[in-house]
Amino acid sequence: MPNVKRLHRYFPILDWGRTYNRHDAANDMTAAVIVTVMLIPQSLAYAMLAGLPPEVGLYASILPLIAYAVFGTSRALAVGPVAVISLMTASTIGAAQLPEGVNALMAAVTLAVMSGLMLLAMGIFRLGFLASFLSHPVISGFITASGILIALGQVRHILGLQIPSGNAVQTAIAIVRSVADSNLSTVLIGIGSLIFLFWVRMSMGSLLVRLGMARVWASFLTKAGPVLVVIVTTWLVWQFDLAAVGVRIVGDVPVGFPGLSIPSFDPELVVQFLVPALLISVIGFVESVSVAQTLAAKRRQRIVPDQELIALGASNIAAGFSGGYPVTGGFARSVVNFDAGAQTPAAGLITAIAIGAATFFLTPLLYFLPHATLAATIIVAVLSLVDIAAIRRVWVYSKRDFSAMMATIAVTLLFGVEPGVISGVLLSIILHLHHTSRPHIAVVGLVPGTEHFRNIHRHQVLTGTRVLTVRPDESLYFANSRYLEDRIYDLVAKNPGLAHVILMCPAINEIDASGLESLEDINLRLRDAGVKFHLSEVKGPVMDRLARTAFLSHLSGQVFLSQYAAIAALDPMIINPDQDGDGIATVEAG
Amino acid sequence: MPNVKRLHRYFPILDWGRTYNRHDAANDMTAAVIVTVMLIPQSLAYAMLAGLPPEVGLYASILPLIAYAVFGTSRALAVGPVAVISLMTASTIGAAQLPEGVNALMAAVTLAVMSGLMLLAMGIFRLGFLASFLSHPVISGFITASGILIALGQVRHILGLQIPSGNAVQTAIAIVRSVADSNLSTVLIGIGSLIFLFWVRMSMGSLLVRLGMARVWASFLTKAGPVLVVIVTTWLVWQFDLAAVGVRIVGDVPVGFPGLSIPSFDPELVVQFLVPALLISVIGFVESVSVAQTLAAKRRQRIVPDQELIALGASNIAAGFSGGYPVTGGFARSVVNFDAGAQTPAAGLITAIAIGAATFFLTPLLYFLPHATLAATIIVAVLSLVDIAAIRRVWVYSKRDFSAMMATIAVTLLFGVEPGVISGVLLSIILHLHHTSRPHIAVVGLVPGTEHFRNIHRHQVLTGTRVLTVRPDESLYFANSRYLEDRIYDLVAKNPGLAHVILMCPAINEIDASGLESLEDINLRLRDAGVKFHLSEVKGPVMDRLARTAFLSHLSGQVFLSQYAAIAALDPMIINPDQDGDGIATVEAG
Repeated sequence: MPNVKRLHRYFPILDWGRTYNRHDAANDMTAAVIVTVMLIPQSLAYAMLAGLPPEVGLYASILPLIAYAVFGTSRALAVGPVAVISLMTASTIGAAQLPEGVNALMAAVTLAVMSGLMLLAMGIFRLGFLASFLSHPVISGFITASGILIALGQVRHILGLQIPSGNAVQTAIAIVRSVADSNLSTVLIGIGSLIFLFWVRMSMGSLLVRLGMARVWASFLTKAGPVLVVIVTTWLVWQFDLAAVGVRIVGDVPVGFPGLSIPSFDPELVVQFLVPALLISVIGFVESVSVAQTLAAKRRQRIVPDQELIALGASNIAAGFSGGYPVTGGFARSVVNFDAGAQTPAAGLITAIAIGAATFFLTPLLYFLPHATLAATIIVAVLSLVDIAAIRRVWVYSKRDFSAMMATIAVTLLFGVEPGVISGVLLSIILHLHHTSRPHIAVVGLVPGTEHFRNIHRHQVLTGTRVLTVRPDESLYFANSRYLEDRIYDLVAKNPGLAHVILMCPAINEIDASGLESLEDINLRLRDAGVKFHLSEVKGPVMDRLARTAFLSHLSGQVFLSQYAAIAALDPMIINPDQDGDGIATVEAG
Repeated sequence: MPNVKRLHRYFPILDWGRTYNRHDAANDMTAAVIVTVMLIPQSLAYAMLAGLPPEVGLYASILPLIAYAVFGTSRALAVGPVAVISLMTASTIGAAQLPEGVNALMAAVTLAVMSGLMLLAMGIFRLGFLASFLSHPVISGFITASGILIALGQVRHILGLQIPSGNAVQTAIAIVRSVADSNLSTVLIGIGSLIFLFWVRMSMGSLLVRLGMARVWASFLTKAGPVLVVIVTTWLVWQFDLAAVGVRIVGDVPVGFPGLSIPSFDPELVVQFLVPALLISVIGFVESVSVAQTLAAKRRQRIVPDQELIALGASNIAAGFSGGYPVTGGFARSVVNFDAGAQTPAAGLITAIAIGAATFFLTPLLYFLPHATLAATIIVAVLSLVDIAAIRRVWVYSKRDFSAMMATIAVTLLFGVEPGVISGVLLSIILHLHHTSRPHIAVVGLVPGTEHFRNIHRHQVLTGTRVLTVRPDESLYFANSRYLEDRIYDLVAKNPGLAHVILMCPAINEIDASGLESLEDINLRLRDAGVKFHLSEVKGPVMDRLARTAFLSHLSGQVFLSQYAAIAALDPMIINPDQDGDGIATVEAG
């Protein structure tokens, strides 16, 4: 029944749905309640971060969750608005020239649908490998820089200041300049919320446990911290009429479900959104898959990256048509979902229903919710994204990766998220190609008394003046084959007594057409110079392909299975150095 | 005396100049005469191909040769106008929006100076590796397509037709449509020249040798074929006043040296020429270095690619300021120079003087030279660039390289030289990254009775259900590290009995920060799943870098020097399968 199997591949719900039972349902219900409590303030806050009305965050947490439950392969992933994607949405819409009749919300809806269609296409055409071009240091640098940008951008809400958006430096300067104009009531609410939220995150859980509370309840109350802050500060604003003294509040929020929203496919808008939508898709996918894989591994489950693309695509299309904005799998809330015991995506379904209910019953209560509270929620959430230790780790491990990372951070902070990611990706590709274009090429000699060959610069090895053995530690391809040629011609010009050059190939996993052409050239040019060219230790698949060409018949020398056999045939004196007296490192290898 | 050594590095003339003797001088003189005879008609023809007055070709063959003689490291390279660079010049100037007061010649001069400055900068900052990104198939495809484009473009001169420039298809259609309007006298001259030149190239040399002529004279006369055609057809046009019946002729050519020409640095022009000048530089450099290396190897000499950049840069700047256009080392003429016995770049100096003399004494004689003759010279020269066999060779060897090659050919023929090269380069980089992003990853088992491990799909090998060994045949870097993760998680999910995963690393030459991060993730996720993660056969430099990180201390398993030691420690039953009975390929490796 190949059709049924295919259906199961595209609708994983058919797999877990068949065996769903009361035990699963109880677990999923518990997880859903906890995630809902966490998700409501986050949704409101991230929508504000995206520059959209707060209810949009709720809308983005209903249908997308249902779509993911139907199509997703992860059992514990919780999709919805996340900080970095919200920032990217804000910066895309802020930078765009919106056509007549298109407001920010319609632009966000368009962005979600475009991103959804791109994810869907990537899933169907199996283009998930595109995500591979975002290296870890680039992503890590980008997320750190985004976290800083987001936190800086929220400081104005904490202080009650009106500051235009700008890059990190501009924002920091503007804050310092106008800090004296801060609104006292707003500052008290904002700083108070911040201190409380940090305390909840850092110490409350362990305190409650020490006071004798069960660990699971302590953990639940920790997650409920933001809800508590929302309730308390909203009550304060209402009770003391703080809006009248300048505390900015959420105000009217429509009650009930959103209507069907229609994205704008104005070509002018679509063209402007092509690159941002692609970046939002790829970055959302990378983050989501990485969370999903971490959680799946803990229960020895599998996720299918190509199907995840389809699921995220469906979620974003659903977000777009229900008045939401781009969503993806969130790290913190997925971990909470998992820890709370979610067994299946049904937990997401239940969360969606709960948030749907909230749009009816909760929204009137949000009128007095201060922006400062939402800003504090955002700052506490995103500061955990800033990973300074990762910068140090990459510095220690690889200067090349470090430079790509720092470029990403600097460009993101100074020029924004889109140029940041693009320059990081381009720089890492260019640095990678540059690096592999000058591979390590060792001149090797025989370790006395063994059959092993080692770099003559690192070991006391035996070599002769008639035979030179060169070992490139990289596959041969267009970017490095000419470098190999140059190295070999140099070595031959410096060692006039040479009669044989052996290319030792144990590290060559592949030779492309340019590499082959270079080997042909080396062979011809060495032959013209009266030097024979040999190969040794060629890997099976590489040899298979060489055998399809005329190269082996042109080769002036031989192909040896082992380097030892090559030396035994071409320069046996090296193996019995007693007869010669001194064969140590007589080859000039500069 | 480091300064003197440095001076010698930048002025190779100081090396060969010191030991220059009468023997060298005699050889260089002979070579210079032969090259001059070959270069004069070619210079005129290539200038016409570049869309410039014919004398510009002569000007480009005087000062640039002197500059190369001073700075070049090849003893036999002959620089001057070449076909492909002439085509690129024509297409660049044709596509450009020339600012007020800038004519085609001034634009050509600007292009030469810009290209010279870029080559100089690449030489000083050692950016020669940029040329590595032009893969052999892309260059070969580009040159083949250029040859076809050039030959097609010259057919109008052979037939005496006025056809606007266009892509290959447009030109072919236009020729077919208007072939009936051909000018009979022009056709007779053009076709006659073509037939004679092909006969000279194919058969005359061997015929003369058979008739008893010394081989060296026969070879010289073969080179002189184009000069003979130029003389005969010019005489015919003059004698029979063919210009009056519509044969297009060169007309007035100024006598004597060009004055100092001043390039235009109008920003509008410079911006338009940035990419074309870079492409002309890089392609000219690649061609030139490849010829120089071929010739140097025959005498066991060396060329220094970075110094070649400086020499070509100086040549182009000299070309620009003396009324010429972009030049590079030509294949055919360098081989002729070498075969005729040129010992040093002094041969180029003498050629330059001879061509300088020609601008005084020869140019008046060129008045009646027909365009059709020059077109025939070009067609015969460029058809040797068209290498159809190379296309077949690449098809057989590598479908990936073949697609980059065909894209280059198709885009060059349809959209022109600049888009052709750029799309070829981009496609080969993308295909390379895509390919290495899905490396070959083998599941391996023990070859019975040996200590060798081989792919379980290719060999009858021993494996167990508790230990899985995975061998990636590629270095780990950002583009492929997630693929490795996916493969390992898949394999672990499919083999529930696993207790150990060994990553066998003999083919891993490098692990970048993304690869390291993936190994950390694999280790953590396998640990969560109760599976230990081990490494075996890690190369020394890779191990050195891993030792700088915390990875080895996090590793749930061990690092084994050999894969055999790993299996001996983790699953000794495999080594003594008798106790177990059947250990063959029980691992699921889908």
